[in-house]
Amino acid sequence: MTSIEKQGRMNEIDLIEKIRKLAAKGPRITVGIGDDCAVFRPKPDHDLLFKTDPMIEDIHFTRDLDPATVGHRALARNLSDIAAMGGDPQFCLVSLALPEELAANQIGADWIDLFYRGLMNLAKRTGTALAGGHLARAERIFCDVIVCGSVPRGKALLRSGAKPGDALYVSGRLGHPWDSRFEPKLSLGRRLRGRATSCIDVSDGLSLDLFRLCRESKVAAEVDRVPIVRGATLDRALHGGEDYELLFTMPPRLAPPKGTTRIGTIVRPQVGVKEPPGFVRFQGQPLEPRGHDHFRRPGAARITR
Amino acid sequence: MTSIEKQGRMNEIDLIEKIRKLAAKGPRITVGIGDDCAVFRPKPDHDLLFKTDPMIEDIHFTRDLDPATVGHRALARNLSDIAAMGGDPQFCLVSLALPEELAANQIGADWIDLFYRGLMNLAKRTGTALAGGHLARAERIFCDVIVCGSVPRGKALLRSGAKPGDALYVSGRLGHPWDSRFEPKLSLGRRLRGRATSCIDVSDGLSLDLFRLCRESKVAAEVDRVPIVRGATLDRALHGGEDYELLFTMPPRLAPPKGTTRIGTIVRPQVGVKEPPGFVRFQGQPLEPRGHDHFRRPGAARITR
Repeated sequence: MTSIEKQGRMNEIDLIEKIRKLAAKGPRITVGIGDDCAVFRPKPDHDLLFKTDPMIEDIHFTRDLDPATVGHRALARNLSDIAAMGGDPQFCLVSLALPEELAANQIGADWIDLFYRGLMNLAKRTGTALAGGHLARAERIFCDVIVCGSVPRGKALLRSGAKPGDALYVSGRLGHPWDSRFEPKLSLGRRLRGRATSCIDVSDGLSLDLFRLCRESKVAAEVDRVPIVRGATLDRALHGGEDYELLFTMPPRLAPPKGTTRIGTIVRPQVGVKEPPGFVRFQGQPLEPRGHDHFRRPGAARITR
Repeated sequence: MTSIEKQGRMNEIDLIEKIRKLAAKGPRITVGIGDDCAVFRPKPDHDLLFKTDPMIEDIHFTRDLDPATVGHRALARNLSDIAAMGGDPQFCLVSLALPEELAANQIGADWIDLFYRGLMNLAKRTGTALAGGHLARAERIFCDVIVCGSVPRGKALLRSGAKPGDALYVSGRLGHPWDSRFEPKLSLGRRLRGRATSCIDVSDGLSLDLFRLCRESKVAAEVDRVPIVRGATLDRALHGGEDYELLFTMPPRLAPPKGTTRIGTIVRPQVGVKEPPGFVRFQGQPLEPRGHDHFRRPGAARITR
C-alpha cells in the first residue's frame, strides 16, 4: 500500500473519536461509546419501546441519494414507530456497514460524515442520544438503526385497541415520494396518548397498514376518502408506503388533533361471510392489502408488524 | 411464476407466525411481535445494557457453516458483552437480511429455521426473550442481533476502573477456533459484580482488548503468561480474537473465581516515556495491539469499543 492510499483510508480510531464527539453522554446514557455496552438508566414507572428497521442500498435507497438524507431517514423511520406508540425518543444505536471501495477513501469518509450529519441533526431535534453502534464491511451500504423510546407505564398506543364505531383518522396527506426527508410525528403521537384507541404509522401503504391495525384489533374498516399529496395518484396514496403519517382510531365524541383528517369508521367484521377481521372497504369496494408479502419483492418485511 | 415456484417461496405471514411462536411474551416484554415496537418493562432500580454486533456472510462466517451455529454465535457474541458488564440478559431483537436465492426456496426456509433454532436454544438457556426484529433482502446474509441486559443501578462492570497493583485475570483459555459454539460467560460476569475493578470480553484478541481496557483505565499492564487452547499457537492466543473469554482486574487480596487464571498485573503508565496508557508488556517485551484498525481488513470494527 502506498502512503497516499494509507493516508486516504479512514482510520478506525479517528472515525470512532469523531463519532464519540457526536455521542455525548447524557443524564440517562451513563456509559456511551467506549465500553462493551451502552448503559441506559430508565425513568421510573415508564415502559420502553424498541424498534429496529434497517436501510439497505439498492433496496431502500440508491447511492446517488444525498447521504445526509439516508442518515435522516435511517433514524426517522424508526422514530416514526416510536411516534406511533406515543413514545418519547431516548437513544439510538447505529450499525453501519460499508463496501470496501467506500471504506478505503475520502469519498467514504465524506459519506460517513454526511450520513452522521443528517442523522444527528434529527437526533438532536428529537432528543435522541447516540449511545453506540458498530462499523463493519459489506458489499452494499447497510445501516441498521435501533431506537429506544419511553412511555408512561401501560400507556403505549397499540394496534389492537380499535373498537367498532371508532372514527378513523390519518395525519397529513398520503402519497409522499419515497426519498423525502419526512418528520416523524412525535408530538402528535404524544397528544394521542390516553385518547386514541389504536395507532400505527403508514410506512407500507394505507391498505396494508390499515389491514394490520384492523386484524390486530379484530375489526374491519370503511374508508370514505383519503387526503392525497399534490401530484400523487390515488393508487400511490392507497398502496405506496413510505408516508410515515399516523393512522389512528378514536371514539367519535372526542375532537381529533389539528392537522388530522377523518377518513372513515371502524366496523364489526362480518363473521361467516367474506369480511374477516382486517377487511377494509374503500368507497364501497373491498381494498386489498397490496404488497403484503414483502419478502417476495425488493423491500423489507418487518417481523414486528 | 409457476405454482411450484410459488409454493416453494416463503410467505411472510407464515414466517412471521412461525417466529411469533418462538417469541412468547413474558412478564417484562408486554408487547412483542405484532406492533410498531416491542414494549419492555424494566425492573425498578436497574440500569440497562445495550449491544449490537452484526454477523455478515463472508466476513464473520461462510455459507457452509451450520446455520444453527450462525444463529448461536449471532446471539452469543452480544451476550458476551452483557457478561463483560456483569449483566443479566433481558431480550433481543433480530434483524435478518437474506439474498434472493435463499429467500425464494426451501433451502432458505430451512436456513432460517435452523438459524432460529440455534439462536433460540441459547436464548432460552440464558433467559433472553425474542422481542422482535426485521426481515429484509440483501446480497449476502446479514444478521444484526441487538441484546438488552439488566444490572442493579450503578453496578455495571466497566473497562475504566482498573488500578495499578490490581491483578489481571482471564477466564478459560485463549486461541479458540473462529467457528466454535462458545458459551457467553454470563454467570462469571454476575459473580464479578462488586468485585472486579474492570472487565472486557476477549473478542478481538488479548493484545487489542487488553490495550482497550488499559487505555480506558489510564493504566498499563505486565502479562507473564496466557492459558492457551490445546493445539492453538501463542500468536493466535495473543492476537486471534473470537475467544469470548472475560478479561478482568481485581485487587490482589480478593480470591479470583474458579476457572480463571491470573495472567499479570496492572501497572502505572510511565508518563514522558514510550509507555503511555494502554501500553502492554508480555514477558518483558512490548505487546502491540494488532489488528487495531479493523476497518482496514475484512472484519468488523466496533464503535462501542
